[in-house]
Amino acid sequence: MKRFKAIIQYDGTDFVGYQIQPNGRTVQEEIEKALQRMHKGTPIKIVGSGRTDTGVHAKGQVIHFDSPLLIPPDKYRKALQTYTPYDISFVSVEEVVSDFHARFGTTGKEYRYFVNRSPVFDPFARRFALHYPFALDIAKMREAADVLTGEHDFTSFCAAGSGREDKVRTIYAIDIIEDGDTLTFSFKGNGFLYNMVRILVGTLLDVGNRRLSIAQVKENLEAQDRTKGAKTASPQGLFLWEVYYD
Amino acid sequence: MKRFKAIIQYDGTDFVGYQIQPNGRTVQEEIEKALQRMHKGTPIKIVGSGRTDTGVHAKGQVIHFDSPLLIPPDKYRKALQTYTPYDISFVSVEEVVSDFHARFGTTGKEYRYFVNRSPVFDPFARRFALHYPFALDIAKMREAADVLTGEHDFTSFCAAGSGREDKVRTIYAIDIIEDGDTLTFSFKGNGFLYNMVRILVGTLLDVGNRRLSIAQVKENLEAQDRTKGAKTASPQGLFLWEVYYD
Repeated sequence: MKRFKAIIQYDGTDFVGYQIQPNGRTVQEEIEKALQRMHKGTPIKIVGSGRTDTGVHAKGQVIHFDSPLLIPPDKYRKALQTYTPYDISFVSVEEVVSDFHARFGTTGKEYRYFVNRSPVFDPFARRFALHYPFALDIAKMREAADVLTGEHDFTSFCAAGSGREDKVRTIYAIDIIEDGDTLTFSFKGNGFLYNMVRILVGTLLDVGNRRLSIAQVKENLEAQDRTKGAKTASPQGLFLWEVYYD
Repeated sequence: MKRFKAIIQYDGTDFVGYQIQPNGRTVQEEIEKALQRMHKGTPIKIVGSGRTDTGVHAKGQVIHFDSPLLIPPDKYRKALQTYTPYDISFVSVEEVVSDFHARFGTTGKEYRYFVNRSPVFDPFARRFALHYPFALDIAKMREAADVLTGEHDFTSFCAAGSGREDKVRTIYAIDIIEDGDTLTFSFKGNGFLYNMVRILVGTLLDVGNRRLSIAQVKENLEAQDRTKGAKTASPQGLFLWEVYYD
């Protein structure tokens, strides 16, 4: 048995998320079906670095699995590509040490969120960006991003009812990049709570649109109360961009 | 009654083409439904610069229609945007002279065709580009493009059985632009026959991949026989980019 690490991409539009669900098509299910075919009917389980929600995309999701097949890694990649549908792709497959773990071994992640600011709705961007044609004070948004960066209890910035786990996370950096009509948010951190990135984006857009002041963002953060937070930005702009390991 | 010219965009993936068909969703039908709603049930016909096929996109399709509504053009644009589905957008609506004709008034068109050359399949490009991860001799393709530019009978480069109309067209320019993994073909001409751009792209890719020589391209052009032409490249890479009027 060998352990393999794979970097995968997916267009999340037609999935109910990464993780297998009783109803609806998932990324995990499609990849496990492909592996089962490659292993002549033997089920092979995969472990992902974490879940992504319905409609959320991945540019650099990481998975691991164990396989007895003696195939060179790049051939393995091509075979998996052949067996999976067009909205999933395998960027790389490599053999790793037997205790590599896609979920428990992560040291951090980057998420990116794309916003299309074109005054005219862009039918080609709609699957991969939020359309937001309103005025934004980018300098104010960067100020708010500074408030949110660092180690905090992010209870106000995660979906209500997401369990009793510890809500302290560290955001290493929030970058806001302007390029023509495209505004990109990059979030790097040691971990992210359920819906956290989308709520952070909702917050920063509210600041940019002057519905929320910097002082209110500080208050919301300190309140540790989800009812104080901003709206959850819609999923189609969100990409799991990169997963870090030691 | 006033005449309006509108520039529209659409993601062609989920349409059976521009023109109304007995079966399947079309761009024309969706826009005429929107206009009918805006005119409280009165049917309004639109005239497009030409058809696009199943799966083909438009970045700058032009239509005209007549309407008695006294609405300023930008409000007209926004109202139409509101009434049409997300895979169609209205870039502009303007009042024009009463003899403006979206189809008969055209002096030429530009089509673009996008090819994604990434060795790894890109799930985010798949709706809007042909995936072609094979080696290409771009210099040879440009040589072939020069052969095809100018006034020719393009019988060998249009769908068989596309009628007895005159097959002479003038291609003003064919540009092949490399940008990272994206290869873009731009075709400007006074008019294009049914499937002509997609067959020209199929031909140029065959030249780039050394399946076809420059001499064979010349022979095919002179043969005026569709059975001599190359494969028709798939529709998802093709965009009606711009329509020219005097």
